[in-house]
Amino acid sequence: MASYKYFNVTFPKEYVAHVETNRPDKLNSYFEPMWLELREVFDKLSESPDARAIVFSGAGDRAFCSGLDVKAAAEGAIIGPKDKSFDAARIATQIRRYVLGFQDCISSLERCEKPVIAAVHGIAYGLAIDLCTATDIRVCAKDTAFSAKEVDIGIAADIGTLNRLPKVVGNLGWVKEVALSARVFGAEEALRVGFVNAVYDTKEQTVTKAVELASLIATKSPVAVQGTKNILNFSRDHPVKDSLHYTAVWNSAALQTKDISAALLSGMEKRVPRFDKL
Amino acid sequence: MASYKYFNVTFPKEYVAHVETNRPDKLNSYFEPMWLELREVFDKLSESPDARAIVFSGAGDRAFCSGLDVKAAAEGAIIGPKDKSFDAARIATQIRRYVLGFQDCISSLERCEKPVIAAVHGIAYGLAIDLCTATDIRVCAKDTAFSAKEVDIGIAADIGTLNRLPKVVGNLGWVKEVALSARVFGAEEALRVGFVNAVYDTKEQTVTKAVELASLIATKSPVAVQGTKNILNFSRDHPVKDSLHYTAVWNSAALQTKDISAALLSGMEKRVPRFDKL
Amino acid sequence: MASYKYFNVTFPKEYVAHVETNRPDKLNSYFEPMWLELREVFDKLSESPDARAIVFSGAGDRAFCSGLDVKAAAEGAIIGPKDKSFDAARIATQIRRYVLGFQDCISSLERCEKPVIAAVHGIAYGLAIDLCTATDIRVCAKDTAFSAKEVDIGIAADIGTLNRLPKVVGNLGWVKEVALSARVFGAEEALRVGFVNAVYDTKEQTVTKAVELASLIATKSPVAVQGTKNILNFSRDHPVKDSLHYTAVWNSAALQTKDISAALLSGMEKRVPRFDKL
Amino acid sequence: MASYKYFNVTFPKEYVAHVETNRPDKLNSYFEPMWLELREVFDKLSESPDARAIVFSGAGDRAFCSGLDVKAAAEGAIIGPKDKSFDAARIATQIRRYVLGFQDCISSLERCEKPVIAAVHGIAYGLAIDLCTATDIRVCAKDTAFSAKEVDIGIAADIGTLNRLPKVVGNLGWVKEVALSARVFGAEEALRVGFVNAVYDTKEQTVTKAVELASLIATKSPVAVQGTKNILNFSRDHPVKDSLHYTAVWNSAALQTKDISAALLSGMEKRVPRFDKL
Amino acid sequence: MASYKYFNVTFPKEYVAHVETNRPDKLNSYFEPMWLELREVFDKLSESPDARAIVFSGAGDRAFCSGLDVKAAAEGAIIGPKDKSFDAARIATQIRRYVLGFQDCISSLERCEKPVIAAVHGIAYGLAIDLCTATDIRVCAKDTAFSAKEVDIGIAADIGTLNRLPKVVGNLGWVKEVALSARVFGAEEALRVGFVNAVYDTKEQTVTKAVELASLIATKSPVAVQGTKNILNFSRDHPVKDSLHYTAVWNSAALQTKDISAALLSGMEKRVPRFDKL
Amino acid sequence: MASYKYFNVTFPKEYVAHVETNRPDKLNSYFEPMWLELREVFDKLSESPDARAIVFSGAGDRAFCSGLDVKAAAEGAIIGPKDKSFDAARIATQIRRYVLGFQDCISSLERCEKPVIAAVHGIAYGLAIDLCTATDIRVCAKDTAFSAKEVDIGIAADIGTLNRLPKVVGNLGWVKEVALSARVFGAEEALRVGFVNAVYDTKEQTVTKAVELASLIATKSPVAVQGTKNILNFSRDHPVKDSLHYTAVWNSAALQTKDISAALLSGMEKRVPRFDKL
Repeated sequence: MASYKYFNVTFPKEYVAHVETNRPDKLNSYFEPMWLELREVFDKLSESPDARAIVFSGAGDRAFCSGLDVKAAAEGAIIGPKDKSFDAARIATQIRRYVLGFQDCISSLERCEKPVIAAVHGIAYGLAIDLCTATDIRVCAKDTAFSAKEVDIGIAADIGTLNRLPKVVGNLGWVKEVALSARVFGAEEALRVGFVNAVYDTKEQTVTKAVELASLIATKSPVAVQGTKNILNFSRDHPVKDSLHYTAVWNSAALQTKDISAALLSGMEKRVPRFDKL
Repeated sequence: MASYKYFNVTFPKEYVAHVETNRPDKLNSYFEPMWLELREVFDKLSESPDARAIVFSGAGDRAFCSGLDVKAAAEGAIIGPKDKSFDAARIATQIRRYVLGFQDCISSLERCEKPVIAAVHGIAYGLAIDLCTATDIRVCAKDTAFSAKEVDIGIAADIGTLNRLPKVVGNLGWVKEVALSARVFGAEEALRVGFVNAVYDTKEQTVTKAVELASLIATKSPVAVQGTKNILNFSRDHPVKDSLHYTAVWNSAALQTKDISAALLSGMEKRVPRFDKL
Repeated sequence: MASYKYFNVTFPKEYVAHVETNRPDKLNSYFEPMWLELREVFDKLSESPDARAIVFSGAGDRAFCSGLDVKAAAEGAIIGPKDKSFDAARIATQIRRYVLGFQDCISSLERCEKPVIAAVHGIAYGLAIDLCTATDIRVCAKDTAFSAKEVDIGIAADIGTLNRLPKVVGNLGWVKEVALSARVFGAEEALRVGFVNAVYDTKEQTVTKAVELASLIATKSPVAVQGTKNILNFSRDHPVKDSLHYTAVWNSAALQTKDISAALLSGMEKRVPRFDKL
Repeated sequence: MASYKYFNVTFPKEYVAHVETNRPDKLNSYFEPMWLELREVFDKLSESPDARAIVFSGAGDRAFCSGLDVKAAAEGAIIGPKDKSFDAARIATQIRRYVLGFQDCISSLERCEKPVIAAVHGIAYGLAIDLCTATDIRVCAKDTAFSAKEVDIGIAADIGTLNRLPKVVGNLGWVKEVALSARVFGAEEALRVGFVNAVYDTKEQTVTKAVELASLIATKSPVAVQGTKNILNFSRDHPVKDSLHYTAVWNSAALQTKDISAALLSGMEKRVPRFDKL
Repeated sequence: MASYKYFNVTFPKEYVAHVETNRPDKLNSYFEPMWLELREVFDKLSESPDARAIVFSGAGDRAFCSGLDVKAAAEGAIIGPKDKSFDAARIATQIRRYVLGFQDCISSLERCEKPVIAAVHGIAYGLAIDLCTATDIRVCAKDTAFSAKEVDIGIAADIGTLNRLPKVVGNLGWVKEVALSARVFGAEEALRVGFVNAVYDTKEQTVTKAVELASLIATKSPVAVQGTKNILNFSRDHPVKDSLHYTAVWNSAALQTKDISAALLSGMEKRVPRFDKL
Repeated sequence: MASYKYFNVTFPKEYVAHVETNRPDKLNSYFEPMWLELREVFDKLSESPDARAIVFSGAGDRAFCSGLDVKAAAEGAIIGPKDKSFDAARIATQIRRYVLGFQDCISSLERCEKPVIAAVHGIAYGLAIDLCTATDIRVCAKDTAFSAKEVDIGIAADIGTLNRLPKVVGNLGWVKEVALSARVFGAEEALRVGFVNAVYDTKEQTVTKAVELASLIATKSPVAVQGTKNILNFSRDHPVKDSLHYTAVWNSAALQTKDISAALLSGMEKRVPRFDKL
C-alpha cells in the first residue's frame, strides 16, 4: 500500500486494513486535501485483493474527528468569503460543485466494496457523523461525544448526515432532535438508538474489537461478504420487489463461485476455509 | 397572530409559537372545521418570521386528542351514511376527495417550514397518532395513553399513521402490531420504540420541556434549522444519492447566508448569536 | 382446508389459521417441494374467508427452521453443481430463474392478504430469517437462536433477508453486523432491536400467545385489518405523499363497508361485533 | 358558475365548460392575481358535476398567451428586485415559496379531475407552454407561434415546461433544442412532434373542434373518463408494475358503477347513454 | 410443445414460435379460461430453449382480437352483477383480486424472456390494445382498426393499456385523446405515432414479415437478445443511473458467454454463427 | 485548453467548444485510453468558463465512430479472454468494475454542465449510439449509417444505449426493434423517430450547423442554459411533482442572477446581451 500524507494505512490482520486519520494535533479535523486523499485511500482498498474488511479510526487520544477545520474552511467555498464580483447564482454554482465533490469523497466509504467499521472515540463532531454514517458498522469508546454540530455554525449538514443517519438508526424522531438541536450525545445513547453496535471501555479496546470483528468478516467468503454489503445498500434505497429482483440478478453470477463448496467442505471438516483473492 | 376558534396560538418565548387544540370538554376530538382551521394556523406559521419553532399540545388535563369526534364524523363522508342515489363508484369519488382534503390539513404540520414539537398527554387515540407522526419531534407525559384506534371502528387509518409511523420509529414489526391490534401503549413503551423522544412526569412539565427545546432550536440560525427539517424530510422519501444531490442544490443558496459568519463570530466571542428574520 | 404434505394447517380459533412446518426430524429444513407447497398454502389462505389472521410456526422441540436442507440443496441450482456444458451466462440464467421462483414462494407470506404472525423457537437459521422477515409480526421463545447464516456457506442471502430485514428492524448498522458476521443472536437481542415483538418462556407459550394475538386481530373488521396490512406494506416502499394518495384511493372503497357501523354500534353496546366474511 | 375577473367561463355544450383567459389587450399575459384566479376556476370545475370536459383558450385574435406580464413581473419575486437587506439565502426562501405557489396554480389544470383540452392560437410563449403541458390534449390554429421563451430572459423555465414537456411529447432531443434555443416553432412542427393533436385553419375552428372533442368525451361515462385521466397521470410517474397495481385498486370501486350496465344496454339499443352526475 | 385449447402454437422457423389466438368465430374475443391459458403458453415459452423469438397473432380474417367477450364478461367480476349480500368494500376486494389476476396473465407477454412480436390485423379493440402493449414490437396489416374501447363501456382500461401505452409510443397527448375518446385509429396513424413499427398490405404478409423479423432475431446470440429485452424493460421503469448500474450487474455474468467469441469468429468468417441453447 | 492525444479540442466561436474524436484511420473506434481521456476532456469543459455549448464530432470522412476497437477490446475485460484461475463470480466482479468505469466515462457527456450537440456522419455503430444518447441534441449528415450493433457480437449494450435511447426518442417499440435486430438505420429514419433533430447534406454542413446552434445557445444566459439542461435531465428521471419541487429549489438561487435584468434590458434595447462567465 502506498503511504499517505494524512492517513496511516496498516494491515493488523490478514485481509484487514486499518485506516487512521492522522492529524491528532488538530483533533483530526479535516480540510480539503484530506478528504481528497481519503477518497484515494478507499478507492484503492475497494479493489485491493489484500483487504476484505476495513477499520476506520482517528489517531491520538482526544478525537475521532472534530469536524471541519474551521480555519481552513473559512477560506473555502462552504463557509468562506464569496467572490463579490459574482452574483448569487454564480456563487451557487461554485458552492454546488464544491459540495458535490466533497460528498463524493466521503461517499467513497460507502461505495468501497469491502465492509468498513468505524472505531470511534473522544470528540466526534460534525463531519465525524457524516463519516460514520458512510461506514457500515460503528463501535465506540465510552468516552465518545457525538454531535451533529452543523446547525451551530449556521449550516444544514450537507455531506451525508441528514441523508444517511435516518436510514442508519431507523428512528427519525431522534435524528430530528439531535440534528436540530446539535446537542452532544454520548456512547450509551448512541448504543440505545442503534447508532453504534457496541461500546467499549477505552479507545484501544474499541479499535481492538473493531479489528477482531473485521478479522472475523475477513475469514468469510469475500464473494458472499461483498455481495451482502452491496445488496444491503441497494435494498436501503429501493422497494422490496426491486431489491429482490436485483439480488437474483447479482447472485446469478455470485452463486457460481467455488467459495460455496469450499465453505461447505471446510464446514464439514470443521476447519477454517481459505478463499481465493477478490 | 390572528385569533382562532379552535386553537390557542401564543408565543411563550421569542420565536417560539405554541399551538394548543382548544376543545378540552370534548377531549380535543376533531371535526371538520377544526382540521381546516389547523391548516390555516400552520400555513401561516410556516411563513411567519416570528416563529422559528412550534410546540403543539392539547388543552385540558385529560387528553391531547381523543381522535375523531365520532358523533360529528357520523354525519361526514368517512363514516357517515352514504347518499343512496349514488352508486359505489360515485360515493368512492366523494370519499376520495374528502380523505385527500383531510390529509392535506394534517400534512400542514409536516410541510410547515419550522420544526414542530408535539407535547402529548392523557388520551392520544386515532387522529392523535396521525397528528403526532406529522410533527418532527414528540415528547409526552407519563400518563399518556396512545392508540392507533382506527381498526376498532372498522377503518384502516388513512390520515397519515400508516404512512408515517413506520418511518418515524423505523420498526415495522412494532407498528404492525399496534396498528392491527389497536392496543393501547403507554409512555414508556413509546419511549422505548422511539415514538417519543422523552417522557416527563406531568403535562405541565411536558409542555415546559417542549417549549425549552423549541426555544433552544429557535436560537439557532433559521436558515440552518429550516434547511435541516426540509432535507431530512426529503431524505426520508428518496434514495441516498438523490438526497445528497438535492442537499447540494439546496445549500448552494443556503450557504450564502450571513448566519454562518454570525454564528462563527459569536461562537468565538462566547455569546448567543442574533440572526435576521426568516 | 386441503391437507398438505409438509405443513399442518389447523384452525385453533375462529378465523385463525395455524400453519406449521412439519419436518421436525430434519429440524424443519426446507427443500424445493416444501417452498412450492408453502406458497400453495398461503395463496389459498390469502383468499379464504375462514382465515383472518395466521400463525406460522415449526413442528418439534428443536427448531423453527434450520435453513436450507443442504444435502438437498447440493443437488439444486443454488449451491449444486453446474452443468459443465453451459457457459457462465447460461448457468446464470438458470440460477436467476431458480432464485426468482424461490423468492416468489417465500413472498407468498408477505402478499397474503391476512396478517401472519411468526411464532419462533429453537434454531432459526438462514432461510428461517427470510421466512420471518416476510411475516408481519414475530414473537419467539427465549431459547431461540437466530442467525443469518448465509455468508458462512459463501452466499449473500437472496431470498429476502437482505431486502426486508433492514425495513423490519429499521436499524441498518445492526443488520449489517449480523448479516456480515453470521453470528448467532438470541431472543433478548432480537427483542431489543425490534426483530421480535415479544419473548416467551417456552415454545408452547409462544405459540399460544401468537394464537391469542391472531385471535384478537381476527375479531376486528377484516376490511380494516386487511387494508391496514396492505397499506403498511405499500408505505414501506413508497414516499409518504405517494402512500397517502394510495391510502385515499384504497379507502374510497373500503370506507363503504358496513363494518364501520357494526363496529360503532357494538362499541356503544359494549359487545363484540360480528363481521361478514371476506 | 361564479363570474371571474380574468376568465370567461361558459358552458357551450352539455357538461362542457369553456375557460377563456380574458386579457386580450395585453395578449393574455399573466400576472399573479390571474394565476391565483385560474386555480380557483379549475379547482371548482374539478368537483363540479356540470363539467365533464373542459376547453381552455385565450380571448382575442392575437394570442393564446404571451407569457408573463414582464412589467408586472418586474415587481414580483421571480424577476423583480430583491430586498437588499436580505442575504441570498433568505431571498432564496422567498423565491422558493413564490415559485412553489405559482406552480401549484398552474398544476390545477393537471389535477383537475376532468380532461382539459387546450385550444391554442397566435402567440403562445413562455408561460403558455407551461399551461399547455398541464392540460391533457392540445389542438391549435395553424397561425400559432410557440416558444419556450424563458432562457431568453435569463431563466430556466420553472412552472412546468421543463418537467412536463418531455413527458408530453416523449422526445427529449427535440425538447432540449427548443428549450435551450428558445426558438419559435409553428403548428406543423408541433403536430409532427406530437405536442398538439391536431391543427386547424383558424382560431374559431380550433375552439369549435376542441369543444366538439370535449363534447364527445362528455357523453362517455364520467366514472370511466375521470378514472382514465387519473390513471394515465399516475402511470406517467410510476413504473408499470406499480401503476398496474394502482389501477386494480382504483377500479375496485370504479367497476361498481351503474354506468357499465347503462353503457352496455344503450350500446345494444344503439342510443346514447345517460349517466348520473359526478 | 403441448397442444392448447384456445391457442395454436407452432414453430414456423428454427427457434421461432408462433402463438395464435384461435377463436376466430368469436373475433378472437377473450374470456377467463383463455387468458389463463395464454399465461401458461407464454410462461412455458419463456423458459423453452426451442423459442428465441415469438410471433403473436389472431386466427381468421376479421380480427386480431375484438376485446373481452362481453357476454362471458357479463357473468364475471369486472362487468358482471355483484353479490348483493356483500357490501361495496367486500365487492371491491373481489374485483381487485380478479383484476390483479387478469393483469398477471397479460403481463406474461412482457415478462416472457424472449422478444414477442405482435402481428395485428382487422379488429383490434379493447383488450387487444392491452395485449399489444405487453409485446415488444408491433406490426400490422393496413386494414387494422385499433381502439382503446374501454371508456365506451364505462370502464377505465385496467389490464395494461393505460399503464404501458404511454411508454410504448412516448407521446402522452395522443394517448390521452384515443383513451378518452375511444375513437378508432387505423394502421397509418398507428405507424405515424409509433404504436406499430411497420404496416403491410395483408394479414398474411404481416404475419410473414413478423416471422421474418423473429427469425432474424433468433439468429442472434440468445444471451444478448434476452439481456437486451430485460434491460430495456428495466430501463423503462427506472432512472438512467439505476439502470446503468443494473446493466453492469446483469452483464457481469452475461459477458462470460461463449457467444461473444462465436459471434466474432463467425463475423470474421462471414458465416452465420450457431449458439448454444438457452 | 490542454492538448489531448485522441481528441482535438478547439473553440470555433466565442464560448463554443468543438471536441473531435481524432482516430480517423481506425474509423474513430474507441479503446480504453480514449474513453478515459474523453472523460478528462468533458469534466474539464464542464467547469470551464470558456465553454457554454459544445459540439462533439468525429475526424475524417468515413465515420463518426465505428464502435469499440474490437482488436483492442479482445484483450480487455468486456470481450477479452477471462483469467481461467478465477471462478465465474470473481470474473463477474472484474467485469462489473470495468463496465461501471466505462459507463462513467461516457456519462461525462451527460453530466457535463454545458449542452453537448453531437454532429454525426458516416458510420455510427455500437458505442457511437451510446455516445450520442449521452449528448443533449443530435444532428447528422444524410450519409449517416446508425446501428446499435452490440447484439451482433453477442452483447446486450451496456454503456448507455439501452438505458438512454428509449428516453431520447420516447418510442420503445422502435428502440426494441433496432436494438434486437441490430439493423442499420439511416438519417431519414433517425429524423423521423426523433433520434436526430436535423439532417444536413454533408458532414461539413452538419458540423457547421451544429456550431451555429451551439453558438446561438452560447449567446444566452449561461445561468439559464445550464439550469435548463440540469432540470431537464432531472425531470427525465423523476415524477413531475418531484421535479417541480426540485426546480423551485434550483431556481431559488438561479433567479438571483443579474442575467435576468441584463437580458430584459438588452431585449428592450434590441441588442445582444453580454453575460458574466460561469
